[in-house]
Amino acid sequence: MQYAETKLNRNSLLLQLKRYSSVVNNMEQTILLPSLLRDVPSDDVEDSEAAENSMDLYESYHLLKAIRNTVESGLVAHDDSKVKKNTALHKSLEPLLEGDPEAFFYFHLRGLFSVMTTLTKKSQNLTEKYLDVIGIGN
Amino acid sequence: MQYAETKLNRNSLLLQLKRYSSVVNNMEQTILLPSLLRDVPSDDVEDSEAAENSMDLYESYHLLKAIRNTVESGLVAHDDSKVKKNTALHKSLEPLLEGDPEAFFYFHLRGLFSVMTTLTKKSQNLTEKYLDVIGIGN
Repeated sequence: MQYAETKLNRNSLLLQLKRYSSVVNNMEQTILLPSLLRDVPSDDVEDSEAAENSMDLYESYHLLKAIRNTVESGLVAHDDSKVKKNTALHKSLEPLLEGDPEAFFYFHLRGLFSVMTTLTKKSQNLTEKYLDVIGIGN
Repeated sequence: MQYAETKLNRNSLLLQLKRYSSVVNNMEQTILLPSLLRDVPSDDVEDSEAAENSMDLYESYHLLKAIRNTVESGLVAHDDSKVKKNTALHKSLEPLLEGDPEAFFYFHLRGLFSVMTTLTKKSQNLTEKYLDVIGIGN
């Protein structure tokens, strides 16, 4: 199995995973004082009700790092609360995809690629927001 | 980002992808005459109605190889029919996961891991079935 760099292109899941990891590493190196992000709301929360339930940038920062650790280890946890939440979701999907592992495969491959793109952007935005907060943003 | 072999364990997505690739390569090397699988029904189809709509082992063989090629290239197609089918599925999921890319991430990571396990088993069963067909099965 070849995971050689030359084989990767813009639509590659593995490249997207690497890109995410690299963007989060950059975020971590840039943000020397993560606590400055406490109580700073996310930009993408528009209405006030959603803002109340939403995490602040400090929480987002730790979440993005935790996901980066999972991406780097490649490990699939089997017994944490995230998984339990998703098991219920998975069960509701099963009737749709039952007997069609091919559909499952393409669905999850595309889904993982898409969510990695979203999370990469989130990490980049968070880094920019931090630079704004400390007054050296563009 | 380290994808070193030492970091992989049994719950690793990357290891599962490699395992799948290796099992399909073995299937391909073993099955010298894939056409012998034509019209051989899948074992996992139990009722006759499902059997009619189901693919035979010859089709399964080609499907498993196509998925192996996607796994090895890591590429996410954006314009084929599989993706279109899954876009609709994805849209129906969005309200459930909206605003929670973390849940999306764990959901798809676990989903991809799980479907790779299923497909690996399918490829192993198909190889055994071929050996039965040519009369050298256990």
